[in-house]
Amino acid sequence: MINWNNLDTLNSFKNLSSKKAVVLKDAMQGENGAKRVKEYSMPMACGLSFNYAAKAVNDEIIDALADLAKEAELNEKFEALYNGEVINTGEKRLVLHQLTRGQLGNDVVFDGVNKREFYLGEQKKIAEFANKVHAGEITNAKGEKFTTVVQIGIGGSDLGPRAMYLALENWAKVNNTFKMEAKFISNVDPDDAAGVLNSIDVAHSLFVLVSKSGTTLETLTNESFVKDALKKAGLDASKHMIAVTSETSPLAKSSDYLAAFFMDDFIGGRYSSCSAVGGAVLSLAFGPEVFDRFLKGAAEEDKLATNKDVRKNPAMLDALIGVYERNVLGLPCTAVLPYSQALSRFPAHLQQADMESNGKSVNRFGEPINYVTGPVIFGEPGTNGQHSFYQLLHQGTDIVPLQFIGFKNSQIGLDVDIQGSTSQQKLCANVAAQIVAFACGKDDENKNKKFEGGRPSSIIIGEKLTPESLGALLSHFENKIMFQGFVWNVNSFDQEGVQLGKVLAKKVLAHETDGALKAYSDLLNI
Amino acid sequence: MINWNNLDTLNSFKNLSSKKAVVLKDAMQGENGAKRVKEYSMPMACGLSFNYAAKAVNDEIIDALADLAKEAELNEKFEALYNGEVINTGEKRLVLHQLTRGQLGNDVVFDGVNKREFYLGEQKKIAEFANKVHAGEITNAKGEKFTTVVQIGIGGSDLGPRAMYLALENWAKVNNTFKMEAKFISNVDPDDAAGVLNSIDVAHSLFVLVSKSGTTLETLTNESFVKDALKKAGLDASKHMIAVTSETSPLAKSSDYLAAFFMDDFIGGRYSSCSAVGGAVLSLAFGPEVFDRFLKGAAEEDKLATNKDVRKNPAMLDALIGVYERNVLGLPCTAVLPYSQALSRFPAHLQQADMESNGKSVNRFGEPINYVTGPVIFGEPGTNGQHSFYQLLHQGTDIVPLQFIGFKNSQIGLDVDIQGSTSQQKLCANVAAQIVAFACGKDDENKNKKFEGGRPSSIIIGEKLTPESLGALLSHFENKIMFQGFVWNVNSFDQEGVQLGKVLAKKVLAHETDGALKAYSDLLNI
Repeated sequence: MINWNNLDTLNSFKNLSSKKAVVLKDAMQGENGAKRVKEYSMPMACGLSFNYAAKAVNDEIIDALADLAKEAELNEKFEALYNGEVINTGEKRLVLHQLTRGQLGNDVVFDGVNKREFYLGEQKKIAEFANKVHAGEITNAKGEKFTTVVQIGIGGSDLGPRAMYLALENWAKVNNTFKMEAKFISNVDPDDAAGVLNSIDVAHSLFVLVSKSGTTLETLTNESFVKDALKKAGLDASKHMIAVTSETSPLAKSSDYLAAFFMDDFIGGRYSSCSAVGGAVLSLAFGPEVFDRFLKGAAEEDKLATNKDVRKNPAMLDALIGVYERNVLGLPCTAVLPYSQALSRFPAHLQQADMESNGKSVNRFGEPINYVTGPVIFGEPGTNGQHSFYQLLHQGTDIVPLQFIGFKNSQIGLDVDIQGSTSQQKLCANVAAQIVAFACGKDDENKNKKFEGGRPSSIIIGEKLTPESLGALLSHFENKIMFQGFVWNVNSFDQEGVQLGKVLAKKVLAHETDGALKAYSDLLNI
Repeated sequence: MINWNNLDTLNSFKNLSSKKAVVLKDAMQGENGAKRVKEYSMPMACGLSFNYAAKAVNDEIIDALADLAKEAELNEKFEALYNGEVINTGEKRLVLHQLTRGQLGNDVVFDGVNKREFYLGEQKKIAEFANKVHAGEITNAKGEKFTTVVQIGIGGSDLGPRAMYLALENWAKVNNTFKMEAKFISNVDPDDAAGVLNSIDVAHSLFVLVSKSGTTLETLTNESFVKDALKKAGLDASKHMIAVTSETSPLAKSSDYLAAFFMDDFIGGRYSSCSAVGGAVLSLAFGPEVFDRFLKGAAEEDKLATNKDVRKNPAMLDALIGVYERNVLGLPCTAVLPYSQALSRFPAHLQQADMESNGKSVNRFGEPINYVTGPVIFGEPGTNGQHSFYQLLHQGTDIVPLQFIGFKNSQIGLDVDIQGSTSQQKLCANVAAQIVAFACGKDDENKNKKFEGGRPSSIIIGEKLTPESLGALLSHFENKIMFQGFVWNVNSFDQEGVQLGKVLAKKVLAHETDGALKAYSDLLNI
């Protein structure tokens, strides 16, 4: 029987809070610093490693975090989750996104259906469909091959798949697995759909309509937008569109689509990149084998998240350090800084995954809690960020914990040697330099040129961004967020906070408003 | 004689801090709420308006903010700035970006040069060059027209111009002023340049190399990358490249470029969108007339920033409310949320403009200060953000002040009517709904469905995003940041915090490292 307790009731948290803080600037000096870099590191899957030397922790604090993990029963809770318990208590749902890429525990059977088999079956159906499209067996009405795939979806149906597509686009081109260009339409702003439609050849485009419920306002509106455009071009919309939805949704059995692929209520939108939501567009863009490799990377990393030793469980330790920074050190934000242009939208995906999961003020029983939960997440790729907001990170009045990501090798492999080093070496040199600059700072008589240091960071280092390492990276962060939700005792898998806005927007459109809402509606000419 | 005093020494700040806080949730109820929406609003330039009804202020607090503006001599400081005083004291430089788009005060003459004439002269040179490119008078070696312009620059030479390009791309297409597609290369990650080069036809591309100093590592590296690619394609690089730099830079008189256009040390990178840095790429992409209209919008908004009445000075009041939220209410972040897909990268630009300007811990005399300065800035377009991080904004444990932007009309004008409303109406209904949902919240017996409310926001509303209104929008935020810097008594125009990382990266590349820096370099195989 698992105990779900608030963080501030745990003795191990009180113990953690009483530990003497690490003076990071001192800890990272000289040979002791070098020793930390070597020791405060652990392997991840697919050649990645997690290094936390520049975090404000020491052996004593890590031991206290391990005690917290134990008292909060993090391993047991994850086990319950992957064995199919109702972890999303608010919505009374299982939480099964890990099952889309592997099986960590027992068979999960719901309503007589083995869920692993269900997800694998959908993946297989998508693979067969994608192969037929690539082979020219499924074509437009004129028998011509589709060249472009356009995902229509918002939130989890957009950010994750889009970030993954951008992460692998150049890799696929270099490795000759690039099949179709992908585009994305998400915003209800009509300029989004119109802009994308103006940039493609609709006659050779296949649209993937993604909505679990089949009722998402933005997505249905954009579907109509696209259907109008297809019709105006003299095309049969039903021959250009597939659906990704749940089996019970109005889209599931419609003849409006060439095919429908399914996910279910046990896959949250922000955790759906490994389900049909990411699977359809990524398999069409890069081929089903690439998507399968991505899943394998994620599954491999998932296994590490079951480790009971926090020093061998990267997601769990990353999560615990984050809780320490948030609830003991009192730091309200976290920046995600990938030194990889291919990961340009990965921070935006994590922004959703993290903030929508853990931006909660009640525990999983709906009771108000007395401590802070999920931080604000933001980030841009380095080195770009260095020439942008790093000024505040280095010399601002607030400390922002940092999560770096870096790879030893580029994806495309094209490079130039300038002033004795390649661009890739310059990129890597910059991330190494930043970690040390943030941690150690630099004194200067001119206080304007002084760097206080003591600004904590960790880094995930990989050989190269590939389908496998991307999958592992995604899994790491999904599991980190899950563990933090467990520690905070919140339900990381619902999102009641998005409802009120929807309700009020409907009132505005129905002209059923008064007071301030009517006044704003008037200002905006609605 | 201007007095530069720390915020915490000002009596008006002490007075402000003692004011009773507004209970926003109550203030925004019923007819009083509607009254606030009508009254707490002021016109901006180019049909925009600034509405601060949903900010946690009342007449008494606004009066106290007006007193603060007076005691902090905000008008006088702005006047000194635009009349050419050395406002960037650390680097002993004038601050003249407003002069690229208009003249608010006296002639500014430096080293015998009238700076307004200098900036206008460069704008004219760019216009002539762009017109010749568009007319096919300046072509590639084969006499064929250039079809693509590629900006090579990072930080201020990238984020602002890129955000402005994206903001006007669809507008220009609809209004038949779209001349050339623009692409951007910024990151030293070789996959950035390689990816862009793979996506264009280099034989018909014109590259704009942008570096004020002519020494930016990333930009020079990417220049070599591009020159290599041009050479490999059998092309003469010097016939495909122009430079935007300062007159004293090594790039200025090089025969490597078709032409060079100049800015100077008095235009900070993050404030350079209106100078040649933005001017070259935007004039080439959309025609010089569009760029000129953009400047006129910015100049018109600048004029409003000189108003001595805070109730008629949108940038100043916006700035003061931000200071109140940061230094009295203690809120560490601000989200920028444009309900316009065209503004998708505007938040990333403001992230640099704001965080690099005011993320400082010393005052303009280099003395440590005892209060917080610039907040963390982040944001994504709505409605996308609603399906992402808004959960935390609504129900998270921390309050994040919000800055909405919305337009009554779309840019492209293509729309569909679904369920009785257009996409544009849905977009506007959503932003109206969000403001009220954040401010007023909603009670519920189920605490998981309860919204506390009391979450402050303002909104800038426009008719349509055009070159003029985009210019006004940019000016508003630049001036807001400037006023906040004045209040915090920091130098908003230097960025010493970016230096240490550069120095250490050079050491890594020269293999002159020890301790932690060597250990990280080893991990990254440098």
